[in-house]
Amino acid sequence: MIIINTGNGKGKTTAAIGQIVRSLGQGFKVCLIQLFKGEKFYGEQKILMQLSNLDFFAFAKEHPCCVKNISFEKAVEECCLAMDKLKEIVSSTNRYDLIILEEFNIALRDKFIDEGEFIALVKCLSQKSDVIITGRSAPQSLINIANLVTEMKEIKHQYNEGTRDQKGIEY
Amino acid sequence: MIIINTGNGKGKTTAAIGQIVRSLGQGFKVCLIQLFKGEKFYGEQKILMQLSNLDFFAFAKEHPCCVKNISFEKAVEECCLAMDKLKEIVSSTNRYDLIILEEFNIALRDKFIDEGEFIALVKCLSQKSDVIITGRSAPQSLINIANLVTEMKEIKHQYNEGTRDQKGIEY
Repeated sequence: MIIINTGNGKGKTTAAIGQIVRSLGQGFKVCLIQLFKGEKFYGEQKILMQLSNLDFFAFAKEHPCCVKNISFEKAVEECCLAMDKLKEIVSSTNRYDLIILEEFNIALRDKFIDEGEFIALVKCLSQKSDVIITGRSAPQSLINIANLVTEMKEIKHQYNEGTRDQKGIEY
Repeated sequence: MIIINTGNGKGKTTAAIGQIVRSLGQGFKVCLIQLFKGEKFYGEQKILMQLSNLDFFAFAKEHPCCVKNISFEKAVEECCLAMDKLKEIVSSTNRYDLIILEEFNIALRDKFIDEGEFIALVKCLSQKSDVIITGRSAPQSLINIANLVTEMKEIKHQYNEGTRDQKGIEY
């Protein structure tokens, strides 16, 4: 099954973390591949690292929009390594029950990875595993091949009240 | 902060679970109060029970719509116990950083708990803790007092393809 968590609201990543916990609790094997999550310590990382049956990889820890000295070319190069990891998983005899591709929608939106190539890889991965892709701005071509798509839609956000990121909630 | 995960799409509960994991990873103390989650084993329960700093309570395990021999009165009675737990937390000197009220929107929608009384309790709880309330059909009065509201909106769902609940994904 191909699952997409997209939209401008909160809950795309936390829902994916919840899904990891649910899947591990059923005794399943899970792989988490994160992009653009390097600037601060996220609470979930500490807990997830303690759990067995979870393989965790992080690439392109900084997004060019957030960090000035990261170029577009550097982001492309680092996202390429993430794509290589996906190819490795496709050709491996090891099987994951669930694969989470965190913020890959952003990498697609910003043209760090090729849409056609990514979709072909996701199709291959989904033959052996459930695949969850997160990030706002999921492209229509990806939505077309997905089985379950949820838009996390912002109805009200504390940022609009002037509050900033809160420990334990946003990270 | 008062946070609401609502809408007809997937991710309300899994996002709350992700939030628990994030919060515990930051060393925070968390309380999870679940309604209507008794029919099957949810993978997350096994993992969450292993983690320290989490108190877990479940009330009204069966919803009258799902189980024929549960009456409206029985549901009201059991949801009352959940409300008693909230009152106990409000008056306790113990403090949680995060309190998750799972499916309480459903209890409000179905009139198992009183909206005014619940809102007053949530306001009290939110003075000491962040409070997350999940479930579809969040009432407008609750949305009005919330700081962060996300609608999990179904764009595409595998149920519409005839697929039913899948282990590790829905439970």
